[in-house]
Amino acid sequence: MASSPLFSMSTMKRDSFVMKTITSNKEFKFNILNKLPVTSPTLLLTGENSLKWGQNESLLRNRMQCRAVEVKNMPGYTTGKKFELDDVIEAQQFDRETLNAIFEVAKEMENIEKNSPGSQILKGYLMATLFYEPSTRTRLSFESAMKRLGGEVLTTENAREFSSAAKGETLEDTIRTVEGYSDIIVMRHFESGAAKRAAATAGIPIINAGDGPGQHPTQALLDVYTIEREIGKLDGIRVGLVGDLANGRTVRSLAYLLAKYQDVKIYFVSPDVVKMKDDIKDYLTSRGVEWEESVDLMEVASKCDVVYQTRIQRERFGERIDLYEEARGKYIVDENVLKVMQKHAVVMHPLPRLDEITVDVDADPRAAYFRQAKNGLYIRMALLKLLLVGW
Amino acid sequence: MASSPLFSMSTMKRDSFVMKTITSNKEFKFNILNKLPVTSPTLLLTGENSLKWGQNESLLRNRMQCRAVEVKNMPGYTTGKKFELDDVIEAQQFDRETLNAIFEVAKEMENIEKNSPGSQILKGYLMATLFYEPSTRTRLSFESAMKRLGGEVLTTENAREFSSAAKGETLEDTIRTVEGYSDIIVMRHFESGAAKRAAATAGIPIINAGDGPGQHPTQALLDVYTIEREIGKLDGIRVGLVGDLANGRTVRSLAYLLAKYQDVKIYFVSPDVVKMKDDIKDYLTSRGVEWEESVDLMEVASKCDVVYQTRIQRERFGERIDLYEEARGKYIVDENVLKVMQKHAVVMHPLPRLDEITVDVDADPRAAYFRQAKNGLYIRMALLKLLLVGW
Amino acid sequence: MASSPLFSMSTMKRDSFVMKTITSNKEFKFNILNKLPVTSPTLLLTGENSLKWGQNESLLRNRMQCRAVEVKNMPGYTTGKKFELDDVIEAQQFDRETLNAIFEVAKEMENIEKNSPGSQILKGYLMATLFYEPSTRTRLSFESAMKRLGGEVLTTENAREFSSAAKGETLEDTIRTVEGYSDIIVMRHFESGAAKRAAATAGIPIINAGDGPGQHPTQALLDVYTIEREIGKLDGIRVGLVGDLANGRTVRSLAYLLAKYQDVKIYFVSPDVVKMKDDIKDYLTSRGVEWEESVDLMEVASKCDVVYQTRIQRERFGERIDLYEEARGKYIVDENVLKVMQKHAVVMHPLPRLDEITVDVDADPRAAYFRQAKNGLYIRMALLKLLLVGW
Repeated sequence: MASSPLFSMSTMKRDSFVMKTITSNKEFKFNILNKLPVTSPTLLLTGENSLKWGQNESLLRNRMQCRAVEVKNMPGYTTGKKFELDDVIEAQQFDRETLNAIFEVAKEMENIEKNSPGSQILKGYLMATLFYEPSTRTRLSFESAMKRLGGEVLTTENAREFSSAAKGETLEDTIRTVEGYSDIIVMRHFESGAAKRAAATAGIPIINAGDGPGQHPTQALLDVYTIEREIGKLDGIRVGLVGDLANGRTVRSLAYLLAKYQDVKIYFVSPDVVKMKDDIKDYLTSRGVEWEESVDLMEVASKCDVVYQTRIQRERFGERIDLYEEARGKYIVDENVLKVMQKHAVVMHPLPRLDEITVDVDADPRAAYFRQAKNGLYIRMALLKLLLVGW
Repeated sequence: MASSPLFSMSTMKRDSFVMKTITSNKEFKFNILNKLPVTSPTLLLTGENSLKWGQNESLLRNRMQCRAVEVKNMPGYTTGKKFELDDVIEAQQFDRETLNAIFEVAKEMENIEKNSPGSQILKGYLMATLFYEPSTRTRLSFESAMKRLGGEVLTTENAREFSSAAKGETLEDTIRTVEGYSDIIVMRHFESGAAKRAAATAGIPIINAGDGPGQHPTQALLDVYTIEREIGKLDGIRVGLVGDLANGRTVRSLAYLLAKYQDVKIYFVSPDVVKMKDDIKDYLTSRGVEWEESVDLMEVASKCDVVYQTRIQRERFGERIDLYEEARGKYIVDENVLKVMQKHAVVMHPLPRLDEITVDVDADPRAAYFRQAKNGLYIRMALLKLLLVGW
Repeated sequence: MASSPLFSMSTMKRDSFVMKTITSNKEFKFNILNKLPVTSPTLLLTGENSLKWGQNESLLRNRMQCRAVEVKNMPGYTTGKKFELDDVIEAQQFDRETLNAIFEVAKEMENIEKNSPGSQILKGYLMATLFYEPSTRTRLSFESAMKRLGGEVLTTENAREFSSAAKGETLEDTIRTVEGYSDIIVMRHFESGAAKRAAATAGIPIINAGDGPGQHPTQALLDVYTIEREIGKLDGIRVGLVGDLANGRTVRSLAYLLAKYQDVKIYFVSPDVVKMKDDIKDYLTSRGVEWEESVDLMEVASKCDVVYQTRIQRERFGERIDLYEEARGKYIVDENVLKVMQKHAVVMHPLPRLDEITVDVDADPRAAYFRQAKNGLYIRMALLKLLLVGW
């Protein structure tokens, strides 16, 4: 889509949103519409010119195609009401109401079982995973989500060597080609803003699966979803963010999203060299979210509902390996931390972990990080469903 | 297949064609034939010895298998009448009549929608994409085509590192192994003639997705198909081939195929260093096709139905970057070219493009290159259908 | 699973086998059980605490999930009786009785045809191929097997560059993540014992597709299956193992498995530098299997039912290329060997081959190596079916 994707449709500054919302690789020809037996097509006209029934087909050539939403009655599932978003590009697109609604769909996804009618709701849809840098975990999660819903996948593990990109093709041209082969594109890129550029070009939905130092919105959503599933609420919670708070995009996005809830308190626990930056602190303050910095992991752990640990990223320290080693060993979640944590509290981590959570923590019921990874599957199933067939 | 694949079956100089034509990974055992409920098997015997019903199964061991064409009635689709070709190896296999018939099928493919009966016509079939050099665009196009028809795909993005090939296995041995896992092989190779060698070995259809400097027949077909779709005819058209005409296999194949039509006129517009070679010019002359070389892109553009632009390939110039830069900038399709082009004419390009077509051309309805890429999907759907289940 | 997988369930030294055996990615919630229309769930409780119907769902959080075996009646196929093995890790897991039963299932697999009910028995199941080193042949064979049965596949061709592994994630953490996305993991690794470690962690079945110098059990099974299919029996056979007997894991596993049958005689024919090691010889002697070393390939070939040729691996010789060349040329299977072989005998080879079998042998009905490769498909189909839906 041509403009920055915002949540509220009424505030969308674009005149072409209709086109993408009704794309489903179903470009019904006027003259065959009556022959289609099982679908209830809802016609919507796109492009700058309005077209009338029976007008000459050649008018359609300039991509002003007449597309239709196929509304199919599947047992237990109603589809059709359009999802508010055309693309999933950044965490800022989501307000509290949308988040809650997405979480409801994610919960349904947990119940979808193999061979049940629900597992075929994306049958016939094709997702392209266009990964300009490898991220097998994220790629497999999306591909599993698509296949668990009956959809199919076109994979490219290393699109950077996509022969066309290597030959100097622009991202825009690549997107225009790949959108001809698929119904939705999940894209990971090494450049911040790449997903937004792709969405501005594509006539089909784009999901940002991480664009360099930029955004990774599905990770942010699965983190909030996990808190809701584990703690049972999002208002009134206390969350300790631990580790590399300066560079970790997950903790930054999480802090941003938590500001949408009431009476949240956030504790920052990090080595001095990787403290949370002022932009997020200022944002939290402006939203009335209480926050505080602490050097005492044990005290914070004893108060919090969630201890969110992160990996100290070696690559951020350059040649100062001494600083890296010092930062890395400073805040470890181990059995001693578990001992002071409340019974209902949980430990989270975006994975992969090194030794910032010791393996003896894994057996504790409060170790939520593998359930958190699994929740990524449900969130991605929900988003794929919503973007492709609506609510 | 053992000999060069030619169109007319009556001229085929080979004694083994029956074997491949009826291969569909369905090696019915004699004694279970009567138990199969939904198929109408047509038995054909293969190999050197003739076999009778009830003969000992052990006789079959020497790959003299009894195979059957499964003729299934699917709503709206009749399958069964054998396609004239066993493999798709080179543009020379196609005569005008076959091209037209394939284009009719490609048009049907445009109408095939998700979840409609047609989209399952290749259900149960398995395509292996054996790519010895990466070409994500072509690979995704084929894989999308297969999946849009309900078929499944086995992918290998970089078969050159196929551990067996790296260990010194011959192409023939690799093909014999992979044909055991799949129903059709789409192969891209760095050596001219590799596809023909594969076809000579395989008992299942092979599609050449480009073999080095050799052939890329599906690209040639989609180019002709695009002209027919965009201009509405192939007889009597005027086509300007622009850019690197010496090295571009697409323009060479296109010129070759256009010679099959009546009253075609071809204009060659290229920098001196990459002019069309004599073999194609001589061929056109021998077929009575009018052609002419020009240095005036504007004049040619004003006369033509199709302006077919191509990329000047830097790798052809070695260290003479000066020559490359000169050649590259010489003929650019931009808004000025559009201004002189006729209203019904189109700009085509095999993609990827660099700056030989400026981006401001994209918005013009006559910019056909992304529709052209999409047509590759329909042509490949058609060929997969024809090779696997016939007309 | 936590302990070494042995065949007999009664001897299994583990207390957690129930959990894996009933995992099928179907974690039925208590409160929706009655709403499921088509399944006959058999509930089994797992974990350390016992749970009662209606107990609070939050109790389930510590991975003490209530899982159910879905028993579905599909025409012609009965599923449900649990396979004796949870994972396929090494050849030693299989006794004669199990081998025979697996071979019966593999024979059924040969008859499974596209679109027949049987080809959908794994519909809805998802297999992850986690390959830490490339092996396209093995990967495609497994993926074809899964898709021939209606299942779906998540692929990673080069998991060594799995971004998480590259960042230092343990194999155990990777497995815990990937098991959240799939129903079964097929794993190839460069380290001996890696598959066993994965199986100890995973709650879903693991199949070892080769772990470095360690095991490659599905290759061992397909070799024995091929002998049974080609010769018609396994008791009383004479087998010549030829080539690199010191390093070839296939011949070592084959010798081990053949010891389970009666009146087997094994001949070892190899250059001095790569002779069969004493551990296998001692094992055969301890099992009463007759064996003998020979330097006369012609004489052995004339006596044997199976001549099993292998590739001399250059990489084992380091800089002594002279020794490699000498060893490599010593025992070649060619037309002269065929002449002395019995009519019913066969030549086998695990592939890829270089020139240790000359290509003129390929046309002989006794050349069984490509049929052997194809049998790998049936064995893998059988194992996938057994591990996922039982007998």
